[in-house]
Formats: sequence, C-alpha cells, structure tokens
Amino acid sequence: MSIGQEMYDLCVKMFPYCRSITGNGVRKTLGTLKEVYDNIKIYEVPSGTQVFDWTVPKEWNIRDAWIKNSAGEKIIDFNNTNLHVMGYSLPLDREVSLDELKKMIYTQPDQPDVIPYVTSYYKERSGFCMTETQKQSLPDDTYHVYIDSELKDGSLTYGEIIIPGDSEEEILLSTYVCHPSMANNELSGPSVTIHLAKWLSSLKKRRYTYRIVFIPETIGSITYLSRNLDIMKKNTIAGFNISCVGDDRTFSYISSRYGTTLADRVAKNVLDFYYPDYKKYTFLNRGSDERQYNAPGVDLPVCAICRSKYGEYPEYHTSKDNLELISPSGLDGAYQVYQQCIQVLEANYHYQIQCLCEPQLGKRGLYPTISQKGSYDEIRAMTNFIAYADGSNDLIDISNIIGEPAVSLLPIIDKLQNNDLLKAV
Amino acid sequence: MSIGQEMYDLCVKMFPYCRSITGNGVRKTLGTLKEVYDNIKIYEVPSGTQVFDWTVPKEWNIRDAWIKNSAGEKIIDFNNTNLHVMGYSLPLDREVSLDELKKMIYTQPDQPDVIPYVTSYYKERSGFCMTETQKQSLPDDTYHVYIDSELKDGSLTYGEIIIPGDSEEEILLSTYVCHPSMANNELSGPSVTIHLAKWLSSLKKRRYTYRIVFIPETIGSITYLSRNLDIMKKNTIAGFNISCVGDDRTFSYISSRYGTTLADRVAKNVLDFYYPDYKKYTFLNRGSDERQYNAPGVDLPVCAICRSKYGEYPEYHTSKDNLELISPSGLDGAYQVYQQCIQVLEANYHYQIQCLCEPQLGKRGLYPTISQKGSYDEIRAMTNFIAYADGSNDLIDISNIIGEPAVSLLPIIDKLQNNDLLKAV
Amino acid sequence: MSIGQEMYDLCVKMFPYCRSITGNGVRKTLGTLKEVYDNIKIYEVPSGTQVFDWTVPKEWNIRDAWIKNSAGEKIIDFNNTNLHVMGYSLPLDREVSLDELKKMIYTQPDQPDVIPYVTSYYKERSGFCMTETQKQSLPDDTYHVYIDSELKDGSLTYGEIIIPGDSEEEILLSTYVCHPSMANNELSGPSVTIHLAKWLSSLKKRRYTYRIVFIPETIGSITYLSRNLDIMKKNTIAGFNISCVGDDRTFSYISSRYGTTLADRVAKNVLDFYYPDYKKYTFLNRGSDERQYNAPGVDLPVCAICRSKYGEYPEYHTSKDNLELISPSGLDGAYQVYQQCIQVLEANYHYQIQCLCEPQLGKRGLYPTISQKGSYDEIRAMTNFIAYADGSNDLIDISNIIGEPAVSLLPIIDKLQNNDLLKAV
Repeated sequence: MSIGQEMYDLCVKMFPYCRSITGNGVRKTLGTLKEVYDNIKIYEVPSGTQVFDWTVPKEWNIRDAWIKNSAGEKIIDFNNTNLHVMGYSLPLDREVSLDELKKMIYTQPDQPDVIPYVTSYYKERSGFCMTETQKQSLPDDTYHVYIDSELKDGSLTYGEIIIPGDSEEEILLSTYVCHPSMANNELSGPSVTIHLAKWLSSLKKRRYTYRIVFIPETIGSITYLSRNLDIMKKNTIAGFNISCVGDDRTFSYISSRYGTTLADRVAKNVLDFYYPDYKKYTFLNRGSDERQYNAPGVDLPVCAICRSKYGEYPEYHTSKDNLELISPSGLDGAYQVYQQCIQVLEANYHYQIQCLCEPQLGKRGLYPTISQKGSYDEIRAMTNFIAYADGSNDLIDISNIIGEPAVSLLPIIDKLQNNDLLKAV
Repeated sequence: MSIGQEMYDLCVKMFPYCRSITGNGVRKTLGTLKEVYDNIKIYEVPSGTQVFDWTVPKEWNIRDAWIKNSAGEKIIDFNNTNLHVMGYSLPLDREVSLDELKKMIYTQPDQPDVIPYVTSYYKERSGFCMTETQKQSLPDDTYHVYIDSELKDGSLTYGEIIIPGDSEEEILLSTYVCHPSMANNELSGPSVTIHLAKWLSSLKKRRYTYRIVFIPETIGSITYLSRNLDIMKKNTIAGFNISCVGDDRTFSYISSRYGTTLADRVAKNVLDFYYPDYKKYTFLNRGSDERQYNAPGVDLPVCAICRSKYGEYPEYHTSKDNLELISPSGLDGAYQVYQQCIQVLEANYHYQIQCLCEPQLGKRGLYPTISQKGSYDEIRAMTNFIAYADGSNDLIDISNIIGEPAVSLLPIIDKLQNNDLLKAV
Repeated sequence: MSIGQEMYDLCVKMFPYCRSITGNGVRKTLGTLKEVYDNIKIYEVPSGTQVFDWTVPKEWNIRDAWIKNSAGEKIIDFNNTNLHVMGYSLPLDREVSLDELKKMIYTQPDQPDVIPYVTSYYKERSGFCMTETQKQSLPDDTYHVYIDSELKDGSLTYGEIIIPGDSEEEILLSTYVCHPSMANNELSGPSVTIHLAKWLSSLKKRRYTYRIVFIPETIGSITYLSRNLDIMKKNTIAGFNISCVGDDRTFSYISSRYGTTLADRVAKNVLDFYYPDYKKYTFLNRGSDERQYNAPGVDLPVCAICRSKYGEYPEYHTSKDNLELISPSGLDGAYQVYQQCIQVLEANYHYQIQCLCEPQLGKRGLYPTISQKGSYDEIRAMTNFIAYADGSNDLIDISNIIGEPAVSLLPIIDKLQNNDLLKAV
C-alpha cells in the first residue's frame, strides 16, 4: 500500500473521534497515532496550571447531545457529527421555545448549507451548530435540548516524540490534535507528521535531533513552550507547524515572523523549484501554532508549509472539511515536500572547494575530454556549484544562486566529496 | 472660524508686504506672525558677518518704483505689485530709450502673461519685471525709470521659537519669510508653521523640544546654522522644511540626502497610508532650505512635505502664485499632515510585549469569547501589533510591517499599556 | 590612421598563425604584439610543471595536415585554414576507409556550413574538422590522412607587461593568445589590450600600476596565478578579462562572482550611461579566464566587458568568426570603453566638500548671478555632485546617485579642486 493511502486510512480511522483542546478525544487520537509509531510519550498537565499568560482550562468531555422537537424526533444528533455541539458546551437538559432555541444555535449564514465549527473555551456557554438552512426552517414548537457533557478539573493531554541525532541541535515538527471531525484542518496534520516520525526513525544516520509534538492548538503550544522553552531556544535550528496538508489544490507557505529563518529558507527553496505556483503568505496571515513559536521572546525559527491553508479555502472550519476534501495524493505531496526539506537541512553545510582555481575535472572523469561548442552544458550544475562553494555559502545559498534545486545538488556533493574536492566547513 | 480659514486670512494680511532676504518686509512679516503666537524671538545679524562660505549681504529697502512713458503715464507701478521690481535693485531715476529700457526688463517668455519673480542678491543691478506681452507691446518712446530703494549696511532678520519638551532632543520646523507677494511659495509656509507652533505650545505634555525658525531662504538658513550648528547636530532627531503648503492639488515629499532619516520615515508613513497618490521627490529635486540642513557636515535629518512643490507647478515664482492659488482646505490639509507626523514622532518608541507567547486577550475583554471563522478580523490590527512588538521595532516599523497607519495604532498602544501588556523600551 | 584601423590591421596580420595553448603559434603572436609595444616580458613554463590542480601539458606544434582521396586530391588542407585540424592532434599518416575517416571527423551539425573549432588537450587523439555538408558528401573511397605534428615535452609560453604607477595597487588586464584563426573570439582581445598598454605607458601620471597578461586560456591563467597569486591578491583593486571585443553588434558585461567588486562597479557605470542597451550576464554565464580569477580562494575582483560575448553569437568557435565579423569601429568602441573605465578608476576617490552648507559658487563665477525660474539647470550636475561629496561616496557612487556619467564629472572635480572647495579623502 502506498504511503499516501496509509496516511489517508489513518485519517479515516480518526475522523469520528470528538476531539477538543482537552479530554478523551485527544487521548484516543494519540493512542491511534501510537499504533503507527510506538515511541510517543504522553503528558498530562492539570487544569489550573499557569502557563505564561494563560491557565490550563478545565477538561471537557461529552457523551451525547441532541435537540428533539415536540414529537420527540431528533432534529440534530451529536452521533451524526460532533460538529453539532459547540466545543466546551456545558450540560443541558430542558425544554425551550423556538425563540430560546435560536439563541443557542450557531450557523454560518454566508454558507447556508454547512455546519460551522464553533467553540467557547474560555467563557462557559452551551450551544448547538446547524446549517443556516435548517435553522431558517425550524417551525414554532417546544424543543428539548440535551447535552450530556462534563466540564471539570482534569488535565490537558499532549504527545511528544524525541528522535535523537548526532547533534543536540533540533528540528521541530509540531501538529495539533484538538479539532473534532474535520479532515484537512485537523487529521492531515497528525497523519503526515506521525509518518514523518516513522521515516526519520528509520534513517541510518541523522545529523539533527527531531522534536515532534502533537498538541492542542494555542493552549497546547503555550503549555508545551512553558515547559520546554529553554531547551528549544537553545537547540532549535528550524521548525515547521504541520497543518492543512491533505488536499490536492495547491501548496502554501506561511513565513516566520520575519521570513528569514533557516526554516523559511529551506521551505522556499523546495517550493520555489518544485511548486513555483505555490501561494506565499506572510506572518500577517498566520493562524496556527506558528503564532506562539514566533511570539516575541519565544523567537523560534518556525514556518509552515500547507496544501490549502487554514482560513483560505471555503470548507475551512465547517462540516465540508471532510474526508472527500483530502486524498492519498494530497497527503503524499505534503509528506514528500517535508521529506525534501529535511534532506536539504541535513546536508545544509557551508561547502568549500579544496583547490585553488577550478579543479581539473577531466582527469577524474567528470568532464568531457573533447572541447567543442555546447560540450559543457551537462556539467554546468557541477561547475556552478564549485564556483560558489567558497565557504561563505551553505547548500541553500548555492542552490538559490545557481538556480538548481538543493535536492538535485546532493549527488554532485557526493561525487565531489568522493574525489576529495569538497569539504563541509 | 476653522483653522484653515485662520491660516488663509493670515496669508491675505501678509500678502502685500514687500519681503526680501533682508529689510523691513521681513520685520513686518515677523511682527504679524507674533500676533498669532507671541513667543517669537527676533534676531538681527549685521551685514558683513561671515557665515560659513558666505557673507551676510547689505540690507535692502524700497519705498517706490515705476516706469513712466513720455506722456507721464505709469506703465508699471510697484504699488500694484512688488514683483515689478527685481529684488535688490539699486536706486534709479533717469530717462532711457526703449532699447535701454528693454535691457533692464525681465520677463518669462514661455509664460507671456505672468510677471516673473527675479532677484540679483549678489551682483548689484537694477531691473524691472513685467509680462512678456507688455514688453512686446512697448512703443518707441523715452521712458522715465524710477526706483526709490536703498542698499546699505544693516542686518539680516530672523525669528525663532523654542518650545521645550521633556527631552532636550529636538524637532526642527523651518520656513522662510523672504519672498514678496506670492502665496503658495511664501505665505503658506509661515502661516502653517506659526499655527503648528501655537498648537504645540498648547499641548499638556511634549516629549520633544521644538525649534521653529522663520528665516530668509538660503542665506538665512546658512546664517542660522552658523550660529546654532553644534546644538542642532547634538539634539535634532527630525526636521521639516515647511514650504509650498497652501494649494489643494496634491501632496509632495522631498527626501533628505539619503531618504532614511526619522523625518523621512514618519513623512512617508503618514503620506503612504493617507495620501497614497502623493508625489515622491528625491533629494536631487531639492530647492529650499533642506539644501543647507542636509549639506555634508551639517547632516541634519530634515525632509519636506509640500502640497504642490516649488519648481513643479506653473504659477511658481510668478505673479500667478497669488491668493487664488491657495485655500483654507489646502492649508488645513498640510497642517493636519504635519500634526500627524508630530503625533507619531512623539509616540515613536520601541515597543515590547510583556509576556511570552500571545497574551490572553479574552480575559481582559479584548478578544471575542466565541471562536468561529471570521471572528478575529476586527482585532487583527491589535494582534499584529503585538506580534511585532518585540523590542526591535519602533512604532513606524510596526506600522509599515503590519500595514496599518501609525496614527491608527495609538489607541491600541493605550489599551495594551493600560493592561500592563506593553512597554516602551 | 585611426587607432581602430591599427587594431584591425594587427588582427589581420596575426590571423593566419596556428595558435594553441602551447607552441610556436603563441610565441609568434607575442612577437607580433611586441612590435606594437616593446615592453612585454616572455615566460616559458616547462611541461609537467604542477600548477594548482593541473599539470602544464606537453607542447604541441604542427607543420602540415591534409586528407587526400584516392585520386590524390586534397579534400581538406591545413594551409587553407588551421581549423581543419583538431587542436593537439597526434601525428598521422595512413590510409583509411570512409567509415574509419568519419570517426575522426568533427562537424557542427546544427550549422552545416561552418568548420567548428575543436580541441582535445587532455586526451591524446587525432582529428579533423570540416563542414557537415562536406562530410555528408564524402564518397566511398580510400583516404590518406596526414598530420605532421609533434606533441612532446616543451613549455607553455605567456607574456606579461608591468606598467608602474604611483601606487603598488594594481589593475589587471588579461587576454588570451591560444585560439587559431578566429577573429572576435581571439585576436580582438590581444589587439585591443596591447593598444591599451601602449596608451597607458604614454600617460604622464598613473595612480595605479597595470599588470597586463597575454596567456593561453584556462591552463595559462591557472599557471600565471600559481606563480603570482600572493602579489595579485595583495595588490589587485580591479581587473578585466578582455575577450570578444571586435564586432559592432552590442556591448556585453559578465559580472564577477558576486558582481559587487570595483571592477563591476566601474564597468556598469560606464555601460549604464553610454550603452544602456548592453547585455548583462551574471557569473553563471562565465566562460573565459574570469573563471580562474574569480575561483574560490583566488577571489580577484575581475569582470569582463565584451562586444558580442563568447558562446552567445552564431559564429562563435567556428570558421565564420573571421575578419569580416570584426571591424575598426567595433574594436575602437571596446578600446574606448576600457579607457573610460580606467579614467574613472584613476579618479575614483572619496570626495569631500571643504565647507559647511553649500559653497557660494556665485562669487567664484560658477553660478548665475540672476535668480529666476530655470536659471540653475545648467549647474545642476555640479550642485548635485557637491551635495553627495560628503566623504562617504566615491566618484562612482556619486555618479550613480546623481545620474550623471562618472566620466562627465571629471571636469567638475577639476573646477572644484582648483577653487579649493573639494578634497579627495
């Protein structure tokens, strides 16, 4: 089975779980990810813990919810889609008039046929979500609203994988596990990330250590940073927030705060050469955990590569962000781009040619022995690489200067190193 | 009465005075400005004083002048417009032929219906100005030319206002008072500047000290600098040459020598956001006292914001630069732009957010409590401000990065400071 | 006779010599150049000498070569054009079938009517060159192939001129003398360069020392650098590889490795103002000895100005690159551009105006005494020069900022220096 299909099937499996920023949905998701790659460590952080300017909220769990009309018919049912309940809704069990009901119903009026994804984490409320069309068609009646949920002290749950490399320097991969039944803007992230972890752990040699985290968005990254900031500031050379990596429409890039980190450089190098039509967003278009990783004083070198970016596609945060929106090839495309970024980072040394003037490539079989107009074109990438391997440029610099993808220079580096003509300095 | 109308009326009052680089016209103009804001100190610098590479010239005054034909009819009369006499003309009282007369007449042949503004400060001459049309129609005749002027040792006069602030650091406003009856390229400058002085003096709190000077152009700024250069180099953080600020056609900006000073940054920020169609000129298009303030070794951070810039509008330096060319709204537009520049400069600190990761705005009532697609748009300017309030950016930097006018960020800064979330560092 | 004609006639004279990277063709060429300017020192470097990563090859000489058909008719003859023999061909004297013959024949199939220029310096072979048309028309026959050449230990020959100046700092002019009968891509280079040497030696005053070398391409520059690298790295402030400077079609510029050296700056200044349509090539389009001068660790500030650049015109490296392709005016245009570059370099000081504020130009007769709209236009270049003569800019900087060719500023510099208003700092 292709890795794209494996990633897709994992999304299918995790789709029905009712995730939120705390609770059993997160735990169940982490458990399923553990089946793919075992070495995840699970952490629980108690409600009420102070994390920078925030407090870990109460834990929320939900078993059932519905609205019945006076005939006893369920007009919406949590078991059909967990999007019907506003995240963090308090328990409810009473009869209400149509007017009262309408005050607890959230819709997306500009998209009348979708159920929106709505939460109220930090103010206690109860609420239901449905399509605007359904809301408009509700007859005058007495309705029974029922939410069997629980909001009480508990803990916030997250998962962490550390895959050691030769160096203590780290590359961060971060994804989130806190949205209910949505596909691109939820399950694509953990699915691609867990498979990247599996691949990284299989490599014979790793220059860098990999820190891979599965957290609830915002409060999770704030919590994680409050417990790991010192080591992350010391060691992180590049990081990526992995989100919305499942559809086939486009690639997108969201820069770090200033767009100049090593993470930005490698992301742009890979996308510029292989997907030149990708969409570039600045940090002003941020929205996920790159917000926290790039916050003043945190200052981690983190950017994001997405397929269709959160906030920019019509199905975003609605019931239409479902399993039809993502595909094995969409997931696989993102997986490969991240693999290429990692391959380039692992080889991203400053290179220096080991002789003065051009080396005589001909005597090493690396150059045509007959000189005639046109005979050098095919070794142009190699001679250009050599021209800029002056110790001041790293692999990404050279790639950008000479207009050849960094990934394509890896075999040239091998040839030159095998001939003792090149050193990483 | 609107402030625009007040400024216009002041121009009307000062229009008839016959100003030059020295003499009673300057004194009378400064006297009228003193009626608006009393605290102007008047200085007199004797003729012959060495000022850098220049010498303060003799003082010039004029009482009357005309040309009569043989029938005794005045064909031009100084009392109709003082532009009829070349500035610094020596006294004259004799009869001349048409040919002789034509040698003393200056016109603007490419604009045959205007009287040009002409001077000969540094070579002693006598001359009259009239329209090219009039000159061409002069019949063969004997003419009586008469100039009742006086050129003798005296002094150069200028005015200075110092409005102290919390800091010794200074903002310079400079304008000139040396052109005869012209409106945009003369009276708009002192009129707007004296009203800015009045406004500044009324502020309860000023971060900076304001140095405001009313001088004859070129020789006046050279003279002023020769007496104040050390303190100005030590204290000046930004300055503006205020000239041609009265018409309604456009806004213009003339950069400092390299265009990178704080004065340039604030001028461009205000104009970019509020008047994006304004005309940008480099220092190669300079022409007024920014020439001296930016001279090598002087090196003051001075640029200029105009309405229609000197040298660039057809009425420039002619009798058509009259009171019909300027308007209350034209003057008011310039006045407001300079006010905004000053407000931004006063608030232009480097800002730093006072927590790690994003602050929890919700608990302070600064953030929506329900999260749904689209719910963050209205607080985007605040979160973007926070994202770049990392201590490395001043207000203008942040404004430019996040694409919000600096002026519009002032209330956000207040809110964040009131919540102890932000410090100026 | 015009200098253009002199340079053209010199090309005509040297055209028939059979040059290669070693051998008597080089010596004969250097001998002819010596007739124009006597002070060339000739060096011989023995075969087998190690020069960085390379070895000086055996010396190659050739007396005659032809192919005869079975009727004894010469179908090609070295005496018609030396391009008929592949450079460095081993001796040959035997009969071959048409099939065998075809294996030793090189053509340019995409240009069927040209004889290509082909060499095999570093692998021992024998070969003939002819048009693709001729090759296709060869009848089945027995052919007699004959090459009377010699490849044996000898030496590599090069010429060097040193013209001392006031400073030990050097300007490098490098050209090559290793191609057989081709005009633009061979003889234009040495012809223009020897005339530049003659002109430089005639100057009464030289700020810089000039190092002028006539070498075989690639192996010659590597050899020369291996013997002179230390002094060249210490002293060279700018250098030019002079090649392809004979036709009338265009000007071209090939940048140094990063395009930011003084050589690049002066080349772009001269071409930008006088030949704004010139073609700009980056170092990725390099091909001649700028490759070695700019190699990592060599790092000399060398760029190139060409007419039609090697590799970019259809006649390149073929029998069509003949004396009809170049012209006296083509050679003269390149000669003048290099002269201008040198004049600018010689005057390229950092300039500083010697007074505070603008100098009073009027009292020195450098400024109009009557002030009227439009009266300053003609001295605008001078006042702009003064405005940026602040000690931080060299002549090229000021030229670029104020938009006046550096060459045109030389008389202004003279006037200001004669008035004690300007110093080179």
